[in-house]
Amino acid sequence: ASSNNPIRATLFPGDGIGPEIAESVKKVLTTAEVPIEWEEHFVGTKVDPRTQSFLTSESLESVRRNRVGLKGPMATPIGKGHRSLNLTLRKELGLYANVRPCYSLSGYKTRYDDVNLVTIRENTEGEYSGLEHQVVRGVVESLKIITRTASLRVAEYAFHYARANGRERVSAIHKANIMRKTDGLFLECCREVAAKYPDITYEEVIIDNCCMMLVKNPALFDVLVMPNLYGDIISDLCAGLVGGLGLTPSCNIGEDGIALAEAVHGSAPDIAGKNLANPTALLLSAVMMLRHLKLNDKAEMIHNAITKTIAEGKYRTADLGGSSTTTDFTKAICDNL
Amino acid sequence: ASSNNPIRATLFPGDGIGPEIAESVKKVLTTAEVPIEWEEHFVGTKVDPRTQSFLTSESLESVRRNRVGLKGPMATPIGKGHRSLNLTLRKELGLYANVRPCYSLSGYKTRYDDVNLVTIRENTEGEYSGLEHQVVRGVVESLKIITRTASLRVAEYAFHYARANGRERVSAIHKANIMRKTDGLFLECCREVAAKYPDITYEEVIIDNCCMMLVKNPALFDVLVMPNLYGDIISDLCAGLVGGLGLTPSCNIGEDGIALAEAVHGSAPDIAGKNLANPTALLLSAVMMLRHLKLNDKAEMIHNAITKTIAEGKYRTADLGGSSTTTDFTKAICDNL
Ligand SMILES: CC(C)[C@H](C(=O)O)[C@@H](O)C(=O)O
Ligand SMILES: CC(C)[C@H](C(=O)O)[C@@H](O)C(=O)O
Repeated sequence: ASSNNPIRATLFPGDGIGPEIAESVKKVLTTAEVPIEWEEHFVGTKVDPRTQSFLTSESLESVRRNRVGLKGPMATPIGKGHRSLNLTLRKELGLYANVRPCYSLSGYKTRYDDVNLVTIRENTEGEYSGLEHQVVRGVVESLKIITRTASLRVAEYAFHYARANGRERVSAIHKANIMRKTDGLFLECCREVAAKYPDITYEEVIIDNCCMMLVKNPALFDVLVMPNLYGDIISDLCAGLVGGLGLTPSCNIGEDGIALAEAVHGSAPDIAGKNLANPTALLLSAVMMLRHLKLNDKAEMIHNAITKTIAEGKYRTADLGGSSTTTDFTKAICDNL
Repeated sequence: ASSNNPIRATLFPGDGIGPEIAESVKKVLTTAEVPIEWEEHFVGTKVDPRTQSFLTSESLESVRRNRVGLKGPMATPIGKGHRSLNLTLRKELGLYANVRPCYSLSGYKTRYDDVNLVTIRENTEGEYSGLEHQVVRGVVESLKIITRTASLRVAEYAFHYARANGRERVSAIHKANIMRKTDGLFLECCREVAAKYPDITYEEVIIDNCCMMLVKNPALFDVLVMPNLYGDIISDLCAGLVGGLGLTPSCNIGEDGIALAEAVHGSAPDIAGKNLANPTALLLSAVMMLRHLKLNDKAEMIHNAITKTIAEGKYRTADLGGSSTTTDFTKAICDNL
């Protein structure tokens, strides 16, 4: 890609603070002369009957066509008759793996300074099947579904990711001592894939023990791969170790090579429109998107400018204990490019 | 109870390091002149057809009769045709609530010094139903069951516990934004019970967010109540905050007022029989048992001797970075009584 021939990428600013932090990303990427042309799509204000959600089929089409995108926070409006925006995206775009690198940011102090791991979450099935029913009054069931197809696919991605990123170990997280068949199938698939990656160490860790080890000594972990709900829990736990969802990026990998990078924090309606939001998670997600596009130099350059700005500490948003506006923080990053 | 008329309690030393740490408990309680007479029951060496596990019906009968007991670690032997020992106990004795106080031990330093919370886990249903099947090759399902009966029972216990122990807040942990019906029913029951306890603040926290908040700022939490698997995960996470399962007690509350205190760590076969095991978790579990029996002075006295010994730091077992034997550590506690 050259600037004559820019890469088209879909941008969902999302709602709440979404538009402000998306502005920040556009500013930083433009300043860094990243050859990207954004196709912006906003969350609709009424349900699109074709998607049964506030996301239109044009929006989804845009990601399918560009195969790459960036997404801000989307708060699913309360009410009946429509699907959650996040779940709609996962389903419609077959976003099967949610990848979240999680590392201590030098310059932003937490109780941990030794975190450097990546969680890879199966993103389409498991406890998120949506299949629930009442058996009799006062007795309800929910179905957890584990399939060989989805488990192999996410395991493949995890090992591929580990090798491509110079990581040494993949830990499969499970509760197969209790859920022998479902989590058992997940492990079986991980083992099959592991056998094809003799250069990567493979281990299995029970989820309760994993959480205990993570809070005691997160340096024990490298790449973690797991079913949907465990991934939901552990990825947030890990984000907490390094400062929270405002600082951690993510990227969803989907069918046909789609990559949709995503800030997973909320839309923070209380501070929306006030120029107070921290754009770091969305910026670092954009960096993941650039790496996916093999724009590694640009990615590195922007990444370093972000971490340098945070480390300098002069410009920080309120959530990090500072008093900068979103625009001042963004400007500081641009100055550090 | 007087020493002429001691309280009978069942003791399951368990296996691995179980017998050694159970010795330690007996020694400390005897030295403290606690009026308890132990009925010891060991895990069998073959499957009892009546219980389908290595636990005999005599063992279970003993707890039912005494209504109070203490349990060391039990490793379920690998193989088919029998049930997990822990699950057998929960099922047979209707142990519906697993209670785990979790607090920073002054004198044992971790990354946290501000933990003081109690997790209360529903212990009989949810993801532990054991109902799993293969739908077609490569597709397996697992049933999570939530009932009104079990949810109300554990919620009642949590609020009762909070009030009885001078605690101010109960947080129900859930994922009802995804599992609307199952976790929704759990929350509904918690709300019903909360309405009867206007003196206790009630809140609901989504499990992923809960884990993030726990690692960032555990002081935000007081009493947490939750379905089975979330309780399994969060109670171990919390134990990790203060040093791990070797330091944290638990007590299971069952039908007919049964209380079975339990060290939830493993049986550590590698160090079994070597006089190296740390008896702290079992000792603190015994303290919970004594509190349940309203032997509060004895409980307090033993609790203080344990924490004092750990704080002094002269006698510590290897897992805490020391080089004391189990017997020396136990003697130091007795000297501190
Ligand atoms: C908002 C919610 C549906 C979502 C999930 O549970 O997956 C969120 O927690 C996440 O991790 O993206
Ligand atoms: C050993 C295992 C079955 C058990 C559980 O999952 O409940 C353990 O983790 C616990 O917390 O007591």
